[in-house]
Amino acid sequence: MDTKELSEPSFAEISPTVIVGAGLIGASIGCALMSRGVKVHLRDSSTANAQIAAARGAGVLERPVQDEVRLVVVATPPQDVSEVVRISLKEFPNAVVTDVASIKKQIEKELDGSTDQERYIGSHPMAGSAHTGPLTATSDLFEDRTWVVTASYGNPDWVVRRAFMLGTAAGARTVTRSATEHDRAVAEISHVPQIMSSLTAARLTDVPSEDLQLAGQGVRDVTRIAGSDPELWSQIIAANTEEIRNQLIKVQKDLSRLIENLDDPRIVTDLLSRGRQGRKALPARAGKSPDQLVTVTAEIPDKPGAMANMFRVAEEAGVNIEDISMEHDVHRNFGFLRIQVAIEQADILRSALRQHWEEGRLSYD
Amino acid sequence: MDTKELSEPSFAEISPTVIVGAGLIGASIGCALMSRGVKVHLRDSSTANAQIAAARGAGVLERPVQDEVRLVVVATPPQDVSEVVRISLKEFPNAVVTDVASIKKQIEKELDGSTDQERYIGSHPMAGSAHTGPLTATSDLFEDRTWVVTASYGNPDWVVRRAFMLGTAAGARTVTRSATEHDRAVAEISHVPQIMSSLTAARLTDVPSEDLQLAGQGVRDVTRIAGSDPELWSQIIAANTEEIRNQLIKVQKDLSRLIENLDDPRIVTDLLSRGRQGRKALPARAGKSPDQLVTVTAEIPDKPGAMANMFRVAEEAGVNIEDISMEHDVHRNFGFLRIQVAIEQADILRSALRQHWEEGRLSYD
Repeated sequence: MDTKELSEPSFAEISPTVIVGAGLIGASIGCALMSRGVKVHLRDSSTANAQIAAARGAGVLERPVQDEVRLVVVATPPQDVSEVVRISLKEFPNAVVTDVASIKKQIEKELDGSTDQERYIGSHPMAGSAHTGPLTATSDLFEDRTWVVTASYGNPDWVVRRAFMLGTAAGARTVTRSATEHDRAVAEISHVPQIMSSLTAARLTDVPSEDLQLAGQGVRDVTRIAGSDPELWSQIIAANTEEIRNQLIKVQKDLSRLIENLDDPRIVTDLLSRGRQGRKALPARAGKSPDQLVTVTAEIPDKPGAMANMFRVAEEAGVNIEDISMEHDVHRNFGFLRIQVAIEQADILRSALRQHWEEGRLSYD
Repeated sequence: MDTKELSEPSFAEISPTVIVGAGLIGASIGCALMSRGVKVHLRDSSTANAQIAAARGAGVLERPVQDEVRLVVVATPPQDVSEVVRISLKEFPNAVVTDVASIKKQIEKELDGSTDQERYIGSHPMAGSAHTGPLTATSDLFEDRTWVVTASYGNPDWVVRRAFMLGTAAGARTVTRSATEHDRAVAEISHVPQIMSSLTAARLTDVPSEDLQLAGQGVRDVTRIAGSDPELWSQIIAANTEEIRNQLIKVQKDLSRLIENLDDPRIVTDLLSRGRQGRKALPARAGKSPDQLVTVTAEIPDKPGAMANMFRVAEEAGVNIEDISMEHDVHRNFGFLRIQVAIEQADILRSALRQHWEEGRLSYD
């Protein structure tokens, strides 16, 4: 891996910042900004939320000097965003006002014609969690994530610059899109996959528990995001129905064609091949394509320090670990580590682990 | 974690074993059996395949003494299984004959009325890989996996016992089901999720590449198994169309209802809630439910031994790592480690990592 750029830009231009809504996202932005020297004022309709967020280092509870505020981040539930943005534009006359809702076109439409609307610019930090309150807020929530800024032609440069600075200060990779482009993209790569995951998982409610015992990693992966909050997701879907419906109708056509032709291997293979092609179209995260990698499975020994030792053995053998995952065997109550390495390094890793293995346990030499 | 049972049963009762078909599954079974002292004879219509498998330690190429063979494992492509089972029952009069195909009812039907059919018993090791040849065969492929034995009433005890012994010798958790139960279960928890993943991924072929750049972990999880081999999966689906069609028609109903009511938040929330419920119905792998876990993200420092060091720090801090995953940032060419821990241990881990972090790098003290 290359060396990371260590020098960070100064974030004075967005200090002080007001964050309205101290839930997981708002409070996590607060933690990230505070850790990089930006002064943050927190505001939440729930005093408890604001206090918890402040205790986690997300900002202070004192009121800011209105004219001095340079940035306002609206992190309220989606349905309140437009109203809070409008109020904030009035209250903080020198601030850029942004929001973090996951749908942008509808908010832009609702704000159209507002006074000072050129100081509003949308944001969408593409990060989340199974948790929703400030209790698990953390400054690292946006590390390694994409942060979309939806600039419109009306936004002056200084407004766009502050919005970018926010994403960068949060630790994310910041990119720009129009609201229309953004909403289409998230329908395709987030909302429709969410619905497909939920449709798959909804079927499992009918499945006898002895059949569920046979579930492997595949169905777990497909249904992971079906565990998300239904209320939040129903708001997200409600704000993007047009794009989502277009996509779902195409899925419906593929599904109907498949059901009608399930006995025709050509039609089935055609769908599976298109699926494989679509999967390959996703940009790779690592330098290598997954096809060149193999998985080595090793039992995690029941000794303190065992996992660290396994990594030490791998690294000393010169093996480059491409991916790792852990699995627990609920029936036997122990764990396995799956280590993905390049195909030519698999045997090196296996024999290195085996060498340090004694009576089924990693030895400490 | 509890101590693993170290004493292993003796596998003399299944030695020697003949494996017909030295692809990934056949050769991996061979490697596992050989590593536990079972003598394995390999056979493959491709001499190259058999030779590669033998070189990987999956068995020997010599012909066995026919009367002495105690177990035959048919690991050919699905469409050849019945024929090879029938031939094997004749050729090896004292052997149990099993196969490893992922659909069992059709094979049972095809074999019905064969001479000595009570010596045939089906198996389904629920493991796989993106690779198909013997080159990546490994004795650990079945570790931590479920191995289904489809016993029928006609099978005498000694036949069932040898089939169980095979799964155990391969390192898997062996369970028994009827062929009908098995095929219904795999339709529900494997084949339909595979099709849903392929349907989702097939849509991505239409998505502009700038939209795909915004893809996060969710769509990657949902579409992971869409990367599987279309030819193999079309054979699997062809052998289980009845159960799959029943399930897909239910999905189709849910999908149509959703498309027609996309503007009605109650209908949308209802589907999402049923999805969440289905997700929760999947048996947990670890002792904890995922809701009690949070994720700590840390950059992997660009130093040899860094990952081992991160685990050492975590373990010395008394943090119990519940799950780990790695992500690569293709744009910035470095990696992040996501560490899942119990909610009350997250801050302990964060401050332990931070203490050992110097100018953005883990220090070595």
